[in-house]
Amino acid sequence: MEFRLIDRLRERTAQNRGDVSLGIGDDAALLAVPPGMELATAIDTLVEGVHFLPGTAPADLGWKALAVNLSDLAAMGATPAWALLALTLPGAMAAEARIAFVDGFADGFAALAAPQRLALVGGDTTRGPLAVSVAVHGFVPPGQALLRSGARPGDAVLVTGTLGDAAAGLQLARHPAHGAVEPARAAFLAGRLHRPTPRLAAGLALRGRASACVDVSDGLLADLGHLCEASGAGAEIDAALLPRSPALLAAFDGAAARDFALAGGDDYELCFTVPAAGVADVQADLARLGCGATRIGCIVEGRGVRVRGEDGAWLETPRRGWDHFDP
Amino acid sequence: MEFRLIDRLRERTAQNRGDVSLGIGDDAALLAVPPGMELATAIDTLVEGVHFLPGTAPADLGWKALAVNLSDLAAMGATPAWALLALTLPGAMAAEARIAFVDGFADGFAALAAPQRLALVGGDTTRGPLAVSVAVHGFVPPGQALLRSGARPGDAVLVTGTLGDAAAGLQLARHPAHGAVEPARAAFLAGRLHRPTPRLAAGLALRGRASACVDVSDGLLADLGHLCEASGAGAEIDAALLPRSPALLAAFDGAAARDFALAGGDDYELCFTVPAAGVADVQADLARLGCGATRIGCIVEGRGVRVRGEDGAWLETPRRGWDHFDP
Repeated sequence: MEFRLIDRLRERTAQNRGDVSLGIGDDAALLAVPPGMELATAIDTLVEGVHFLPGTAPADLGWKALAVNLSDLAAMGATPAWALLALTLPGAMAAEARIAFVDGFADGFAALAAPQRLALVGGDTTRGPLAVSVAVHGFVPPGQALLRSGARPGDAVLVTGTLGDAAAGLQLARHPAHGAVEPARAAFLAGRLHRPTPRLAAGLALRGRASACVDVSDGLLADLGHLCEASGAGAEIDAALLPRSPALLAAFDGAAARDFALAGGDDYELCFTVPAAGVADVQADLARLGCGATRIGCIVEGRGVRVRGEDGAWLETPRRGWDHFDP
Repeated sequence: MEFRLIDRLRERTAQNRGDVSLGIGDDAALLAVPPGMELATAIDTLVEGVHFLPGTAPADLGWKALAVNLSDLAAMGATPAWALLALTLPGAMAAEARIAFVDGFADGFAALAAPQRLALVGGDTTRGPLAVSVAVHGFVPPGQALLRSGARPGDAVLVTGTLGDAAAGLQLARHPAHGAVEPARAAFLAGRLHRPTPRLAAGLALRGRASACVDVSDGLLADLGHLCEASGAGAEIDAALLPRSPALLAAFDGAAARDFALAGGDDYELCFTVPAAGVADVQADLARLGCGATRIGCIVEGRGVRVRGEDGAWLETPRRGWDHFDP
């Protein structure tokens, strides 16, 4: 426990929650799960140069480190409650730089956490190559969590929001010389990369209605592939149906936009399946929530994900999402 | 989620627990805290070159990454139940090396987890500089957790086991040319560094009896200092009373052994306070548990930790434990 830095984090992330008996400052936090609720918990790590570019603003990193974890809770249909943080900062950073980094990080974290009333209840700051792990905890009524394993042939496949924006934002950040992109559109794509919106309200709305759900972190093909594998089924999707933002379509040609939407990571939209009879209702509800939901294909017998191109022919080798190690 | 590596971890860390509704393999784990119990949770990170030496055996790292976290639960008097793991492995590792590393890591992790019936319920493997974060979860009856904040002037200060062994083991690992140390003694000190024993049974035995408790991770002076600060009190300890192992005393001279015991980190013993009338009973019980407990001083009015040297004079500037950033 590093008291000075942790204290700054604590001050900036304070939440008054009755279910936190003891927060940051002792050897462990003491928490009370509401009676009758299950605890949903997940952990994710972001490493500099792998998951975010060197020079990323600390506030963006604080937001995103929490967002990628809240996205896991969203995909389960869980309500977020608490987080633990492990922040590793380079030993070569001067004390003032560390403090400024932690303050910025905490502000970005809090900007996402506060509206959810999520409390940071524990943390560890240490020295080493810049990286951050967050573990989140949320609640879900027993038996109501959205799993990856419930998709059945005939179910429709839908995604919230738009796909490919984060990958496009990354491409622009890496290659600033890319042809002229209107500043507002470039800012939109950068925002999708740096400040993804976990689809928590959508996840709650899908409880009892989606047969399976996963969040799109590694790319649609990879994550829908995981859903299919867990469900013992396959999927067929139409490239022409992929929801793509005006900014993406303005900044990149059709083939690049399609590849970003199919295989780009970091979108943190939800990909889910719904029995055909329920699609219209779900779409209406998710439209009301602001993110919308687009039907992109259906679950089929068999294995794997096939993509029909705009010309009606199956794409030969759809690019897989980016698995860090395991292709 | 990296399925291949995660699957290997899952296979090697399987535990049949009725309170795990859904373990590794979905977006989040689903867990049931026993009715009426509080959840205790903590996170800790180990970074190569900071918390462990390059070349550390993967099995030792797996053990230690869990041990340092279980030690936090021990210090709270909590019973361990579940863990989440975030493992970052260098991208330059060949696939076979990664698999061998993960297998070894999982075996070391499981060697400590299995006797506790602790289940690994979630994980994230990613690419980057070698590091590991573990978040642990345990249970404690409401109001019975051991806090840092309850020490009162007059309370005795005790520690389990022996102090300074891990620092001595690190010193020998860094300077193999250090004068002749009997192999069995060197192995004991190395074992204390690489395979620390979290004092879980001692933590449970101290519930309702210790007025305050902390685990010794950063060194006795630092951690007892945290306990004193949280309790609004000071402490006076006697260097002559510090429990030191025969191996430590044989391998190092008295001054070095004292410094290791006062300021060396990584011992993962418990430092706790007990009202004077309860000391004998606690010592008898902890002796039965095998770790024992040595009275090293007492809580006093005031602030900070003072150390009386073997000659009866106060040590002038006791070295503080190693805080990674914040002195």
